[in-house]
Amino acid sequence: MSTGGLPNVVIVGGGFAGIAAAHALRRAPVRATMLDRRNHHLFQPLLYQVAISALSPGDVGTPIRTLLRKQHNATVGLLEVTGVDVTNRQVRVAGDADEVQAVPYDYLVLATGVEQSYYGHDEFAAFAPGLKSLTDANAVRSRVLRAFERAEVEIDPSKHRDLLTFVLVGGGPTGVEMSGALVDLTRLTLKADFRRIDPTTTRIVLVEGGPRILPSFAEELSQKAAERLRRSGVEIRTGKHVTLVDAEGVVVDGQRIRSRTVIWTAGVTPSPAGKWVGAPTDHAGRVLVSPDLSVPGLPNVFVVGDTAHLEQDGKPLPGVAQVALQQGRYAGKLIASRVAGRPAPPPFRYFDKGNLAVIGRNFAILESGRVRMAGFLAWCVWAGIHLSFLPATESRFVVLRKWYWMYLTKQLSSRLIGDTPPPGASSDATTRTAARSVS
Amino acid sequence: MSTGGLPNVVIVGGGFAGIAAAHALRRAPVRATMLDRRNHHLFQPLLYQVAISALSPGDVGTPIRTLLRKQHNATVGLLEVTGVDVTNRQVRVAGDADEVQAVPYDYLVLATGVEQSYYGHDEFAAFAPGLKSLTDANAVRSRVLRAFERAEVEIDPSKHRDLLTFVLVGGGPTGVEMSGALVDLTRLTLKADFRRIDPTTTRIVLVEGGPRILPSFAEELSQKAAERLRRSGVEIRTGKHVTLVDAEGVVVDGQRIRSRTVIWTAGVTPSPAGKWVGAPTDHAGRVLVSPDLSVPGLPNVFVVGDTAHLEQDGKPLPGVAQVALQQGRYAGKLIASRVAGRPAPPPFRYFDKGNLAVIGRNFAILESGRVRMAGFLAWCVWAGIHLSFLPATESRFVVLRKWYWMYLTKQLSSRLIGDTPPPGASSDATTRTAARSVS
Repeated sequence: MSTGGLPNVVIVGGGFAGIAAAHALRRAPVRATMLDRRNHHLFQPLLYQVAISALSPGDVGTPIRTLLRKQHNATVGLLEVTGVDVTNRQVRVAGDADEVQAVPYDYLVLATGVEQSYYGHDEFAAFAPGLKSLTDANAVRSRVLRAFERAEVEIDPSKHRDLLTFVLVGGGPTGVEMSGALVDLTRLTLKADFRRIDPTTTRIVLVEGGPRILPSFAEELSQKAAERLRRSGVEIRTGKHVTLVDAEGVVVDGQRIRSRTVIWTAGVTPSPAGKWVGAPTDHAGRVLVSPDLSVPGLPNVFVVGDTAHLEQDGKPLPGVAQVALQQGRYAGKLIASRVAGRPAPPPFRYFDKGNLAVIGRNFAILESGRVRMAGFLAWCVWAGIHLSFLPATESRFVVLRKWYWMYLTKQLSSRLIGDTPPPGASSDATTRTAARSVS
Repeated sequence: MSTGGLPNVVIVGGGFAGIAAAHALRRAPVRATMLDRRNHHLFQPLLYQVAISALSPGDVGTPIRTLLRKQHNATVGLLEVTGVDVTNRQVRVAGDADEVQAVPYDYLVLATGVEQSYYGHDEFAAFAPGLKSLTDANAVRSRVLRAFERAEVEIDPSKHRDLLTFVLVGGGPTGVEMSGALVDLTRLTLKADFRRIDPTTTRIVLVEGGPRILPSFAEELSQKAAERLRRSGVEIRTGKHVTLVDAEGVVVDGQRIRSRTVIWTAGVTPSPAGKWVGAPTDHAGRVLVSPDLSVPGLPNVFVVGDTAHLEQDGKPLPGVAQVALQQGRYAGKLIASRVAGRPAPPPFRYFDKGNLAVIGRNFAILESGRVRMAGFLAWCVWAGIHLSFLPATESRFVVLRKWYWMYLTKQLSSRLIGDTPPPGASSDATTRTAARSVS
């Protein structure tokens, strides 16, 4: 990838931070090169809606090329970055011997985000998919729908309980929003679809290791969310740890909960960006960046978003979309200033616009400055904000229309199971047979 | 699955024929049991639009449960049928020892359709996916989009040719519609997305073994379609056979065409329904049914749709959606009559409403009775008919809106590549490396 004489800014990762960085370089005299191993930007906050069949993958994923189509100084490469050579200023990428091996940079923005973490228990992954990618969301969707399908044809009614028990590990926004949405799926949508089972008898268990769900919210709001979930039938177990996940379910503090569908939203681990550039990291592996988001000692290398660690007012910034967006934009603007020979902007400062979570239809909690809200009005704010942040104009219409449709008919429109069961699916006959034959 | 005292009609396959049969039994005093290994009905005629990113899987697939949700005498089972025990009148299904093993029937409707056929060369499948299922369509979509992505980052320009050459094997409606749509994808949609390659230089080759493309149409229309495709740059090779497909491309009558993206729409093979019931079949394996669509000697077993062979006016009926729909409906009505003790309807007779194919935006060919049309007006008819046949009301709106959007913006909305490259993908670095290391 030639730089055409202009300074080459390489951005790794097309998430919120990376896209914001690229957009901030729109008018700068640079060549911006966006590298991602996936061809799409993902609107993570709505990913759980794909998992419960309310939205299609195309509604929350937008090709990165589409987002940068009109930015003529930007090039997009579908490449997997494997490391950084800070001495020779180039990014190493995976590929055959005859393919591109490295991409040179003058400025580097690492916006590589986080991955699902099973806290050292990667063997749980086969039984409890996470919710970080479209593949994850499709896997969760297939498992959830297959559980009902299998219960419908199961002869032995004692097995219905296992099939109709869903365990969500992790009481953060994704786990909470997913459990609220699962209640709606069973109560409103699937109710009329089955003849032999009653989907409304589904048991949903939400397990959180900390003392309360949604710890990033004020205690009062987290309580209201918990009350709302309990009223709609979700069992919440706080202060409990999942010590085992297998084909039969989970073990929570020594107690077995039999379930064929376990979803893991309990933790994340940062990308290896810190290792790539040999930067100091926190205990989790997040890069301890300078106040201008650059790597200490490497003033032309920036780390932004979830994979960066920066403290503000004595507390580390949270790994949320707003922080990523603002940091990406800051890094882009800083590079634009430096290239143009303008003075650098003041150190990065996060402006907290607030915090929102939705608990099923019509109910959300909202916290912004001194404002704290819980209920339908907060839900409207949530819907409005999410719609306005979806990147493609068209997606916004589609999502709006789907929600409207859902409202009118209580039907979810994307209830498709892929042709082949997911590998390691506990609800898959082949796997279960295999597991038995070795036990 | 209990029959509740009423006669149990088991329908295997939720395609056009199976769904039509179930709907025809709506008011009959029976229990209808629909079995399918997939949870969705597929609107096959628009599947190629998923493959070229114009539509999402959810637009052409509808859960079978949704289609039968209001039909209270119908039960749906996500089960894979493995055989039929005609003596004990039960359908065998795949499953664990503790799961349902067989479903008893009083009447049986086999609507199991056809599968992709590589004419004994199953080894081609890894390099040339077909277009029969949503999985196929997603695989083709990923390959097509990945080919452009790889060309964009490919250093060696001599490889661009291979990456930007698409070969379609089979000149029937799917191959023709797909090649026309591929032209539009490269010319209208992808043009502005890339910086280093020019997608409009894409080479599209359509190979057909017979003397002309679209042999089911009048020669005059098939010529017009060929002219239209040639004008838009598609190379058509009729009377040519593909003798080899591998990671490097295809060999057509001894001549190698280098390509990384080969799509196979050349043939189909019927389901094993004939073997299940021990019925006489034609050379391909289609069941030679009686004039009332029952299996000779088994008056309570019916075979309908693509897996049945019935001659009308000296010619076998074609394997198209209209025949399947009409046969399914006939079988359902016949069973309803018999259960009610009413006289049987006259033998099945197919009413041909006409034949349609679309060749890119704005151009279609149409043949109905003595009417023959080619051009924009025929395209409007095509669009109208397809919209009116999509089963879910909502899908119709979505598809209409997507088409309208495409028209206004020339943008395709569903251009997502899955996270993992398809197994055996010739455009996948890992596979190619592996192939090299063994050669």
